Amino acid sequence: MKLFSSVKDVNDIKAIVQKALILKSNPFAYQELGKNKTLGLVFLNPSLRTRLSTQKAALNLGMNVIVMNMDKEGWALETQDGVVMNGSSAEHIREAAAVMGQYCDILGLRCFPKLQNQEEDYSEELFNKFVAFSNVPVISLESATLHPLQSLADLITIEEYRKVAKPKVVLTWAPHVKPLPQAVANSFAEWMSKAQQENLVDFVITHPEGYELAERFTSRTRVTHNQNEALQNADFVYVKNWSSYTHYGKILTDDKGWMLNNKKLEITNQAKVMHCLPVRRDLELASELLDGPNSVVIQQAGNRVWAAQAILKQILES
Amino acid sequence: MKLFSSVKDVNDIKAIVQKALILKSNPFAYQELGKNKTLGLVFLNPSLRTRLSTQKAALNLGMNVIVMNMDKEGWALETQDGVVMNGSSAEHIREAAAVMGQYCDILGLRCFPKLQNQEEDYSEELFNKFVAFSNVPVISLESATLHPLQSLADLITIEEYRKVAKPKVVLTWAPHVKPLPQAVANSFAEWMSKAQQENLVDFVITHPEGYELAERFTSRTRVTHNQNEALQNADFVYVKNWSSYTHYGKILTDDKGWMLNNKKLEITNQAKVMHCLPVRRDLELASELLDGPNSVVIQQAGNRVWAAQAILKQILES
Amino acid sequence: MKLFSSVKDVNDIKAIVQKALILKSNPFAYQELGKNKTLGLVFLNPSLRTRLSTQKAALNLGMNVIVMNMDKEGWALETQDGVVMNGSSAEHIREAAAVMGQYCDILGLRCFPKLQNQEEDYSEELFNKFVAFSNVPVISLESATLHPLQSLADLITIEEYRKVAKPKVVLTWAPHVKPLPQAVANSFAEWMSKAQQENLVDFVITHPEGYELAERFTSRTRVTHNQNEALQNADFVYVKNWSSYTHYGKILTDDKGWMLNNKKLEITNQAKVMHCLPVRRDLELASELLDGPNSVVIQQAGNRVWAAQAILKQILES
Repeated sequence: MKLFSSVKDVNDIKAIVQKALILKSNPFAYQELGKNKTLGLVFLNPSLRTRLSTQKAALNLGMNVIVMNMDKEGWALETQDGVVMNGSSAEHIREAAAVMGQYCDILGLRCFPKLQNQEEDYSEELFNKFVAFSNVPVISLESATLHPLQSLADLITIEEYRKVAKPKVVLTWAPHVKPLPQAVANSFAEWMSKAQQENLVDFVITHPEGYELAERFTSRTRVTHNQNEALQNADFVYVKNWSSYTHYGKILTDDKGWMLNNKKLEITNQAKVMHCLPVRRDLELASELLDGPNSVVIQQAGNRVWAAQAILKQILES
Repeated sequence: MKLFSSVKDVNDIKAIVQKALILKSNPFAYQELGKNKTLGLVFLNPSLRTRLSTQKAALNLGMNVIVMNMDKEGWALETQDGVVMNGSSAEHIREAAAVMGQYCDILGLRCFPKLQNQEEDYSEELFNKFVAFSNVPVISLESATLHPLQSLADLITIEEYRKVAKPKVVLTWAPHVKPLPQAVANSFAEWMSKAQQENLVDFVITHPEGYELAERFTSRTRVTHNQNEALQNADFVYVKNWSSYTHYGKILTDDKGWMLNNKKLEITNQAKVMHCLPVRRDLELASELLDGPNSVVIQQAGNRVWAAQAILKQILES
Repeated sequence: MKLFSSVKDVNDIKAIVQKALILKSNPFAYQELGKNKTLGLVFLNPSLRTRLSTQKAALNLGMNVIVMNMDKEGWALETQDGVVMNGSSAEHIREAAAVMGQYCDILGLRCFPKLQNQEEDYSEELFNKFVAFSNVPVISLESATLHPLQSLADLITIEEYRKVAKPKVVLTWAPHVKPLPQAVANSFAEWMSKAQQENLVDFVITHPEGYELAERFTSRTRVTHNQNEALQNADFVYVKNWSSYTHYGKILTDDKGWMLNNKKLEITNQAKVMHCLPVRRDLELASELLDGPNSVVIQQAGNRVWAAQAILKQILES
């Protein structure tokens, strides 16, 4: 494995989940694998879970980790080619990526979308150039459009908590006061579509009109604007806000009726409630749910370690 | 030991000082203890000594260390329960603490007071919720009201430099241009009261009127507004500014007469001069003293390592 | 070796280059040397290459590394003596350096010039006080006037790519939109003068009028304002902008004619093109050159690891 940026980079999603669970039961079994190998984690945006869990995963494998907050400890990067760099960007991604590749055996990059230009964000120009010029394996720590380490941790969590062979998994939109990227939702849709193809889950997305995700991630997925219908018999409900893709980056509604609470949970099959975090309490998701027995959001966050460790191990072995 | 936030969390202050001094003489003797254990240091405020010394202590014990500047690399945390999170706080302390506990075996937290509302600061709401929800042992890296790693290092320093069985220790207020927390002074008072109870020191506090510390930390302590009287026969003088507790967070005086200098030192028994640092030269403490033979501020800062290492070791062993 | 701040701190530049190349061919051979030793990297200014390569070098030697962004994670430092510290600086360099020396076996410091007062910057007051008070060996991570780790990496790169015994090396000024320090240029001049003395290179500097570097670094060096003349038969061309030293910190020209491009390269002896990075494409240096076969800027950046590792090893051994 040379790249982990999408479900497409994984040959066998069932196998990688099993590998992650084996690592969870025996975290320090492969410390020789990472010896004298350096993981560079490059952040262009804030991070809590991704930063900490990926560090932990690498340390478990005996790797060294160097964290670089490029936005705060470094400077602005230019991504466009063919421009005279007489503005505010001090370095081109071509050099920055190539140089980091000189110092690290594996690199991770977090680069959020600007949410101003759909085409620009969905081209993943920055992430792709980083991959192209770094010359070492690269892991996405959340790009403009996807967050694959999150989705793998989500799939691990579903495997741990499922009570039936093929649980019903619902991704439901939730209200928020800030326009958020679509990356987590896109990514979850991409991974669940794949899981559905392999008969692992029954997947449905529900959101208000105008919040349709990009077709490339949802073409095989059932979508309904009727949240109650979607929640019926759900075994897992994944709550997440995203801003509009079609009216790009816009907030179209603040309808509080979309917030998941105990009453809505009654419609489900005692569903486990998931969220990638950070979550805004009583805006996206009711406190009563987060503090109740059906929430698995902390365990889900905990699984970020094993997702990252499974991917790092696969890269180190190849 | 599951918590280190106050002198109350230590069974035997004499014993912990001795353990720290043994570690100082043999820093790397317990490297197996921390193997594959991760310490997470979470800062909501700036730090130099605490950041570096605690990292060093953990590395000496063979631990991995992950540093998280939550204010700069992350986002604002909500501490109140029952509020709709539609403001500027992106994550609740309940989730943030629980998630960090998933990745770390021990956590440290620095969270300064806002100095606007006495009751709020002295409730230690943020620190206490962090402890409650993290589900792992927690070390205070300075909370709103206390700084126990500093006070333990102070006690170690007094033990190293004392010439008599029961030295006279004076905590004296000093002028400053910014309103500072009472945490270091509270904490020193708390530890010295305990040390006095155990016949280890003779403790006096001196400050201008209006600078009385919270009674919970000073109820057994002699307090005088007459600095010269306090300094008589002092073996150790601890210099520290704090803002008013009663007129909460206010600066009541800038009386330069309270600054310790060589002339005032003459009143003492050739006292060693202590300060937790950072110190404002010639405002809090005269340069002539800091650069002179009686200052032990650098050695005192050095002892922060052994204080942290003794506490970490005790947590790792329990 | 107790200090690495200038070429003057190296006894034998040929030998240190050879030692670096041996480390490059066998990076992990000396891991016992750094065991339980801690390197503290203190940044008062942004960094990418220096931060990452020096961390990597230390990890290769088995050291622990603690990074401290004093400007972002700490507070402003006072450097002047004899001032009442009632302004914005929270700590004096005297205490800050001494304290860091308590926690680290070796320290590195980055402190850029303010470019407002020539005398002040060229006194290297901050760097020199840090050295004086830290009480441990110190490595410059770029001071106000010099960047020796960069220059050593440059010399390593010239050794690797030279085709003749005594290559012609040209340092050429390049345009920029921001006033930059003279440190990289000063340092390269200082090291190349030394290399020329030892018959390793033939060194020439070219720049527009008014961009003369400080005489202390260039007294033995040929300087010409005619770039084409300088480039003739050049084996290496080092491209770098700097602001004026004589009209201190000023930009005197933005003459695009000084930017190196393929056409200018034709004048040379198929010269290798060097730059310390970050580089502004098509402002300082033509993209066609950076993306072409003559550029060695990435390899040059890669060599920063071996420069730092050679210096750290020498300090650890002494």
